[in-house]
Amino acid sequence: MKVAVLGYGTVGVGVYEMLREAKGLEAGPVLVRPGKDNEPFKVTDMAAITGDPSVGAVAEVMGGVEPAFSYAMAALKAGKHFVTSNKALVAAKGVELNRTARENGVSFLFSAACGGGVPILHNLARAAETDEILSVGGILNGTTNYMLDQMQSKGMDYAEALKQAQELGYAEADPTADVTGLDALRKIMLACAVAWGVLPKSGLLNEGIDSFTAADVNDIAARGRVCRLVASGKRAPDGRISAYVEPVLVRVGDAESAVQKNFNMARYEGKCAGSIALIGQGAGRYPTASAVLRDLSGICVGEAAMFPADCVEGEADNASESHAYYVRLPKACAGALPVAEVLSDGEELRVLTKEISVKQMHEIASSLRADGRAVFFAAMRG
Amino acid sequence: MKVAVLGYGTVGVGVYEMLREAKGLEAGPVLVRPGKDNEPFKVTDMAAITGDPSVGAVAEVMGGVEPAFSYAMAALKAGKHFVTSNKALVAAKGVELNRTARENGVSFLFSAACGGGVPILHNLARAAETDEILSVGGILNGTTNYMLDQMQSKGMDYAEALKQAQELGYAEADPTADVTGLDALRKIMLACAVAWGVLPKSGLLNEGIDSFTAADVNDIAARGRVCRLVASGKRAPDGRISAYVEPVLVRVGDAESAVQKNFNMARYEGKCAGSIALIGQGAGRYPTASAVLRDLSGICVGEAAMFPADCVEGEADNASESHAYYVRLPKACAGALPVAEVLSDGEELRVLTKEISVKQMHEIASSLRADGRAVFFAAMRG
Repeated sequence: MKVAVLGYGTVGVGVYEMLREAKGLEAGPVLVRPGKDNEPFKVTDMAAITGDPSVGAVAEVMGGVEPAFSYAMAALKAGKHFVTSNKALVAAKGVELNRTARENGVSFLFSAACGGGVPILHNLARAAETDEILSVGGILNGTTNYMLDQMQSKGMDYAEALKQAQELGYAEADPTADVTGLDALRKIMLACAVAWGVLPKSGLLNEGIDSFTAADVNDIAARGRVCRLVASGKRAPDGRISAYVEPVLVRVGDAESAVQKNFNMARYEGKCAGSIALIGQGAGRYPTASAVLRDLSGICVGEAAMFPADCVEGEADNASESHAYYVRLPKACAGALPVAEVLSDGEELRVLTKEISVKQMHEIASSLRADGRAVFFAAMRG
Repeated sequence: MKVAVLGYGTVGVGVYEMLREAKGLEAGPVLVRPGKDNEPFKVTDMAAITGDPSVGAVAEVMGGVEPAFSYAMAALKAGKHFVTSNKALVAAKGVELNRTARENGVSFLFSAACGGGVPILHNLARAAETDEILSVGGILNGTTNYMLDQMQSKGMDYAEALKQAQELGYAEADPTADVTGLDALRKIMLACAVAWGVLPKSGLLNEGIDSFTAADVNDIAARGRVCRLVASGKRAPDGRISAYVEPVLVRVGDAESAVQKNFNMARYEGKCAGSIALIGQGAGRYPTASAVLRDLSGICVGEAAMFPADCVEGEADNASESHAYYVRLPKACAGALPVAEVLSDGEELRVLTKEISVKQMHEIASSLRADGRAVFFAAMRG
């Protein structure tokens, strides 16, 4: 099967190289911006791809919703299979792409959009066919895991860890989507849709690591814990789905604490299979390209979809999920929280809350910050 | 697709129950021993299954090479897809079954034979299509991991940990295959065949945990390490394949050290994908049954094989793999080893060796034991 590639950046180059080596797959034209078509295999007009009957599949690795969405729809309507690494695209338009692919009898797969090289979505889709998925989640953003790991193992402060992540190419020049948890949130949206056929588009909550400091690291370490940025999705027996991202304090020795550097750890729990965790490189040229290639070779053996046929957009409900939280906040604001225990006193307090809902905790933090207060919070686990 | 089940023990009951719930699959007849056919869906004659045109696939969960092999060949020749959880069968007869399945145009899958609920073989097979697999391995036996975890976290001695594993149903009445590493060895044989198309049948080495004592636990813990039973397979650039099982001392905080209770951690390293690890329940009714069901639903979407078409039997070469080892042995025998450092002195020595080949270490231990000497050894990692 001949595969056209949209985009020739870090991942695009990896996909093109791997296509040239792969059995059963063939590298087709690569779509680049006008003026960048400096090699014979590069084209600048999408019509050259949709109109080429020898192209069987299109692999999109440009990122962003547009023009990726228009290109995806054009490819699907031209009867080309469509594979993407673009989580923003699938989080925004996945339901429509899934429907359009099925209407045109072609495949729509996006392994690389969640977990990078870690094959979580493929396995989740397979498991959902014969098992009931109870929850999905994990460490889905390698940039922030790298920063947390550096801060905790090397004593770096936040700014230094971010700078190093940028120098190593793990973080973008604008790291907002990573450090605020938005990138991980998009990934958990996809996992929810694969597991339960509902892509949650509203009611979502994401707390990142941009409030985390070296002082927090020290206090948490003294309590035998480490901080990880964890995405969570869960379906309640009544069908309501929770979906959120927040820092979690796990115990040293827990599986999450062993996830180092820029690795991801994605997991799901099946009613029959129990808890399954997958660990690997969540980003990078070849790990991400390898996920794109796995999807393409899956298409050759009949793999058609990750979202179920009746997948719809829906709402997340984070009011019924609750934990105790570790919170740092100004002493004057302690009344905003149901405090179970004061861990350390001073102008800033560190407290453990009673169990409160995820929605309540995120809203309290948001309201304190609106008043200019500095707050860090993380869920307690185990 | 209607599925016949061979065997109605722990896993068989789980498979039958899951088949009755699964979309696209249907529970067919269940083969049991004569006299055990006390329910209408049970049959005692394999011909009732091979001769039933409504049966599309056969799931074998009896264990043992015979009669499982004869039944498998009969099923394949009758044009039925064949799925099994039986690692002894696939390790002994996998190449012939793979060939026979392909000759008859049907699928032969065995996810549940390695990793239980952990989908390592499926992912390895998928990855091998588009990436070069450099190594495979991990913690593949839940019984011994449970025993090691209990010994190390609760201070139990070997006999007590074994008794508890048996009481919980993790260990068989005859635990030999588990505690000697033979069960893990069979699993790594399968992983090698999936990764490289060579099922190693000779030259294999397995060291288990039956020499491990509470005194070893204490000494190792004082050095910041924990013991895990690890299976390893690797392909050298010249095509030679190593395949062996042995205790490994990993650092506290390494991913393997976080694998607790009876969990498995299976991993592979792809040239492009990097290191991918999968963690989950390696045994038990529903985790194992869920792997059988995943294979059956995979068949419905065209998944045909885990071994490549040209898979052959071959030989393992463990002479070119080498590590430093931690060894406990009688002082009088120290001359048998290239000692780098004496860790503790006495009638029994604890030493670190220089790097020696896996083959050499296993042979030295075997020869000392033939002389009635007590030896424990474990590879040093990291």
